[in-house]
Amino acid sequence: MKLFRYRTAEGVRPGLIDAQGVARDLSDHVSDLGPETLGASVLADIRALDQSALPEISGEIDYAPCVGQIGKFLCIGLNYSDHAEEVGATPPEHPILFMKANSAIVGANDDVRIPRGSKATDWEVELGVVIGAAAKYVTVESALEHVAGYCIVNDVSERDFQMQLTGQWTKGKSCDTFGPIGPWLVTADEVADPQNLALSCDVNGTRMQTGNTDKMIFSVAEIISHLSQLMTLHPGDVIATGTPPGVGMGQKPTPVFLRDGDVMELKIQGLGQQRQVLRADG
Amino acid sequence: MKLFRYRTAEGVRPGLIDAQGVARDLSDHVSDLGPETLGASVLADIRALDQSALPEISGEIDYAPCVGQIGKFLCIGLNYSDHAEEVGATPPEHPILFMKANSAIVGANDDVRIPRGSKATDWEVELGVVIGAAAKYVTVESALEHVAGYCIVNDVSERDFQMQLTGQWTKGKSCDTFGPIGPWLVTADEVADPQNLALSCDVNGTRMQTGNTDKMIFSVAEIISHLSQLMTLHPGDVIATGTPPGVGMGQKPTPVFLRDGDVMELKIQGLGQQRQVLRADG
Repeated sequence: MKLFRYRTAEGVRPGLIDAQGVARDLSDHVSDLGPETLGASVLADIRALDQSALPEISGEIDYAPCVGQIGKFLCIGLNYSDHAEEVGATPPEHPILFMKANSAIVGANDDVRIPRGSKATDWEVELGVVIGAAAKYVTVESALEHVAGYCIVNDVSERDFQMQLTGQWTKGKSCDTFGPIGPWLVTADEVADPQNLALSCDVNGTRMQTGNTDKMIFSVAEIISHLSQLMTLHPGDVIATGTPPGVGMGQKPTPVFLRDGDVMELKIQGLGQQRQVLRADG
Repeated sequence: MKLFRYRTAEGVRPGLIDAQGVARDLSDHVSDLGPETLGASVLADIRALDQSALPEISGEIDYAPCVGQIGKFLCIGLNYSDHAEEVGATPPEHPILFMKANSAIVGANDDVRIPRGSKATDWEVELGVVIGAAAKYVTVESALEHVAGYCIVNDVSERDFQMQLTGQWTKGKSCDTFGPIGPWLVTADEVADPQNLALSCDVNGTRMQTGNTDKMIFSVAEIISHLSQLMTLHPGDVIATGTPPGVGMGQKPTPVFLRDGDVMELKIQGLGQQRQVLRADG
């Protein structure tokens, strides 16, 4: 199923895209898509509905973040072998973990704001994994049982804040609007193999990133298992799993960064697309 | 005021310690202490209550985390000049920022669990700052206007996970139970000067950390202003502001780390005390 959250005059509501591609409202059946509703039983209830009887949503959908009340937003760095090669980095021995602030999360097509003083705002298309069942000390073999579904994440990054403000990476990762997720949460049953998904990012109509999740150094299952040794992954947690080659910082001969008015378009096979316009904070 | 949250058979409830030191229930007046209730107007409403008319809480209080629905848990590293000196580090040019997962947050006296495989679980007493009003691009001069109050934080840390798992620090900071906060949220009006508070941590009855917030490299106001250039600080966000000398990692001639059954006792002047027993995960 393709589930989403969308904004209405009465607040954020849940919805789904039915088999015919029609957007329908789910708010008579679940109050929201979040920690309380991403478990297998609620998803099974939604799947069992007569979708053709759900109210159609008219007009353009204003997508909210595809998961509400996110507990934590975990991100894996340097996780594509072709990206590591591109930047001349040694592949890490364990997944590199950092966090994005939840306050950075926005909808798939919301504006992305360039913070004051930023000279190096950059794009990163990533496969997002949404947890559906709590995971602690889980094996690689059982890890995917804890996944509710997948979504596109743009791990927007300010490279100077990330690397030159004597902080950890989180400084450049947590700016407001730096975490578009969605448009849809695509349930795991619709993703035959999370390790074989094409993904891309265009900037102003030019293809900048091209990749496939088959180039991940640590698979989704390995990431979940590893993180679960450190902490409990709870329903509604989101994990961004790293980005393929082609970020602005990596452009030759000189890095390219985002400016007011630029447009990012991100796609992942089966997960839809995002489009964000950059707006510089005054 | 000294506000807190405590566990009952009917769930977590808000409370306060009145002027006579009596613990009283606040649940007839506010549903919780969190993003919706930490603003100046709700705090003024609570202050205006006839506290002697509030129901007394009988028996020992089972403290829950002193703030609920925390948006983000930001932590500043290496922020005491005497601690920097102790470990031979150059004081940073800007506040070092990392994040703790919200799922690490527990009450002031809850058990702290040593994760499987841990050999280097360590203590860190810190002054916690709780945001009461949204802060974005604020000056140092106005920064403290955004503070609801202060609390004790134990920034429990697994040093091997923090520094040897090829992650960022967050790996060793985010384990379950690694974020005791409380027992109280002491409102800002009761803290005459956040830059002159004695703080300490005892382990098994031996004083290990002794410090004063006057040794902070970046003051609370400077930290808030700096972070607000990067992201919006929202009501209910918590900032741990760094630790004074005496952590286990810094013990000479050899580091000392926590073991099953050990006891940590933390104090900050005016903010009460915490006591946690260590329990090793099986």
